[in-house]
Amino acid sequence: MKMGEDGSVGGRGYHALDAESVKAYAAGIEEIAGRLGTSDPGALRAREVGDGNLNLVFIVEGPASAVVVKQALPYVRLVGDSWPLPLKRAYFEWNALVRQAAVQPERLPALHHFDPVNALIVMEYLSPHVILRKELTAGKRFKHLAEHVGVFLAETLFRSSDFFMDTAKKKADVALFADNVALCAISENLVFTEPYFDAPLNRWTTPQLDGLALALRADRAVKVGAQEMLYRFTTKSEALLHGDLHTGSIMVTAKDTRIIDPEFAFYGPMGFDIGALLANLYLSYFAQEGHAETPDGRFAQGEWLLETAESIWSVFAESFARLWREERNGILFSRRLFEDVGDEVGATVGMHQFLQAVFCDVVGFAGAKMVRRLVGLAHVEDMESIADPDRRAVCEARALLMGRELLVNRGVFGDIFGLSCLARSILRERRPI
Amino acid sequence: MKMGEDGSVGGRGYHALDAESVKAYAAGIEEIAGRLGTSDPGALRAREVGDGNLNLVFIVEGPASAVVVKQALPYVRLVGDSWPLPLKRAYFEWNALVRQAAVQPERLPALHHFDPVNALIVMEYLSPHVILRKELTAGKRFKHLAEHVGVFLAETLFRSSDFFMDTAKKKADVALFADNVALCAISENLVFTEPYFDAPLNRWTTPQLDGLALALRADRAVKVGAQEMLYRFTTKSEALLHGDLHTGSIMVTAKDTRIIDPEFAFYGPMGFDIGALLANLYLSYFAQEGHAETPDGRFAQGEWLLETAESIWSVFAESFARLWREERNGILFSRRLFEDVGDEVGATVGMHQFLQAVFCDVVGFAGAKMVRRLVGLAHVEDMESIADPDRRAVCEARALLMGRELLVNRGVFGDIFGLSCLARSILRERRPI
Repeated sequence: MKMGEDGSVGGRGYHALDAESVKAYAAGIEEIAGRLGTSDPGALRAREVGDGNLNLVFIVEGPASAVVVKQALPYVRLVGDSWPLPLKRAYFEWNALVRQAAVQPERLPALHHFDPVNALIVMEYLSPHVILRKELTAGKRFKHLAEHVGVFLAETLFRSSDFFMDTAKKKADVALFADNVALCAISENLVFTEPYFDAPLNRWTTPQLDGLALALRADRAVKVGAQEMLYRFTTKSEALLHGDLHTGSIMVTAKDTRIIDPEFAFYGPMGFDIGALLANLYLSYFAQEGHAETPDGRFAQGEWLLETAESIWSVFAESFARLWREERNGILFSRRLFEDVGDEVGATVGMHQFLQAVFCDVVGFAGAKMVRRLVGLAHVEDMESIADPDRRAVCEARALLMGRELLVNRGVFGDIFGLSCLARSILRERRPI
Repeated sequence: MKMGEDGSVGGRGYHALDAESVKAYAAGIEEIAGRLGTSDPGALRAREVGDGNLNLVFIVEGPASAVVVKQALPYVRLVGDSWPLPLKRAYFEWNALVRQAAVQPERLPALHHFDPVNALIVMEYLSPHVILRKELTAGKRFKHLAEHVGVFLAETLFRSSDFFMDTAKKKADVALFADNVALCAISENLVFTEPYFDAPLNRWTTPQLDGLALALRADRAVKVGAQEMLYRFTTKSEALLHGDLHTGSIMVTAKDTRIIDPEFAFYGPMGFDIGALLANLYLSYFAQEGHAETPDGRFAQGEWLLETAESIWSVFAESFARLWREERNGILFSRRLFEDVGDEVGATVGMHQFLQAVFCDVVGFAGAKMVRRLVGLAHVEDMESIADPDRRAVCEARALLMGRELLVNRGVFGDIFGLSCLARSILRERRPI
């Protein structure tokens, strides 16, 4: 067993790298030096580019190519060393990456190296890829995005579920990722719980949103809805999730799409990944007006975002349906009960019943993910980059209203087009605060 | 770490005991010898009494007291050594017993010893306790049964859930029991899958039930319902279940009730334990006419069984509600969102929403558990002991009809009284085949 394969990560020997020491580190690993084109640290350039909340991220460039070195820090970067966080998350991230790469390698950076002692992953430097969130905020569109992400979701979720995976392997994987306690706790607290009470780290655009933020805490239906979604998050071991699939975890070019950063991976409800992504598209939708240079100047961008959300669900559902028909070899909905006795219709009914339940989860999780980005600790750049607080607050209030409706009425919306309809109606109301 | 605490069970050193060697074994363990009142094997009496499907069970009597020695065999006793089964199930049983004993020691036999090498548990010999199933079949009633079992269910399920348990401990326990793959697979196959296709081990009272058994395999709604329940069984990690809570896993006296044999324990849906128990009461209900010595001679026994089922659910729900109000200290439905801000009503709404979802599961699992005992591999003595196959088939056909209705209409029945009503209407129809 190689070090770290049992999950022993960090500990003695761990050193947080910096833009200087990462060069010697990279040059010292034969495989990485080979990729970079030199084993001389002096011939490398390196910079720290991490803009996430948790880790160090270095780009190390050599004469032949560049790599990314992602290293976990023993605390939450966003908050500081007062909030410790286990280095072992690098182990879960690596394990999730390996499993996703076995299914959808074309949607990930190439994986080069895992160093459990330093809680560190070396992977392909994606270029000219950029973070999707920034591009959406800038008004850019990506015509392959929905197809790429919808297929990625279907492939990774279906193939780690009891519809496909050997049940003993799935149970072993559930056990492995059940230990990702600290990162699950971040979601359990920050997504589902803290936004709904007077938690010290909550923040919002004040005083503009004070009324809405306080009303949320007195809103019985939304609190029960959020806790119902937390219940699903903690108890529904459907599939191996990315766990943090927002538009900052996706890198794009005009033709390509890559999914990064699955350190929140665990076995949870399929709807959580899908809902997280849709939530971030809806947040971007409501942020557009804040970035518009003319009235309605971002109308078309908003419509494209809604269409993209619709397509992501449609592509997911179609791809899932194909996998269900062609590769359903797990213990659930055994073919012996259906296709093998000529009952394809029964299998189809079962699949749609399942997809409808996933969709209901998608709606609720999307709602929870929107609310937490507006009145909880971690916000989104889509909104934060709207400089005028009055203008920003209008955008945020609309998004908050949508999040609330999704949580409370998650059983009402029967298809993805209903969510677009809801978003448009909120935008048309014009008086959110 | 003591041997076996890491789950290494059986292996080199394992010996299946017999009624002779178990005496030397028991006498050789100081604590057990002390209980028995002798360390001389010759002064002990022992007999093998296992009537279950999987294990050896010895009663070892000494001058001072008696103990039970339960040993796992490396195969399914019911089928023979052609069906191997991991000895490690004794480890899961021990771990489940220890957790249940921490909550409800008065409902378990006292636990004396765990021997991981021999996959063996030594526990209290319960006397004058008898197996509940036999007594129900004989027309006996137990006035404390519902209270005892309802409280046991609420205490064991609530306290292993995210409503109460520390989330890191719960996740560690989910991981531990996720390895109980082989016993989960027995349920996955025998309860939810094999009854619905032409599986070689299926059996039923033939030719009387041939038509009904074959109709089941062509019944799309019941197949989809059974698979929906399998989906919940494999993905819903709500609480640590007993996993096999039928009337053969309960020992009773007029005043006492003990729950035994949790080797199928794993983290699953609360409704599975409750539904399993109700299913066995309903099976007994429909078996009564087959044992009646006069027409309607078992009517009152049948009514008592339905009332007991009603009381078990009511006691469970009331006890669960009390625990919810008083001891809800886990991550789910945090008091900070509800009671701490004066919103008791929100917590109450959330609880009833949860209990209603559990009840829906109870109905579906009860249906699956009834069907599998009538047309699957393992049957129940309640029915098997009806000697006349025509008479037995009438009882079984009614039970099968109820199982089917519960699976198909699990969303229809809103409370436990509806299930009693269904059972009575099936009995009144009089022409089940």
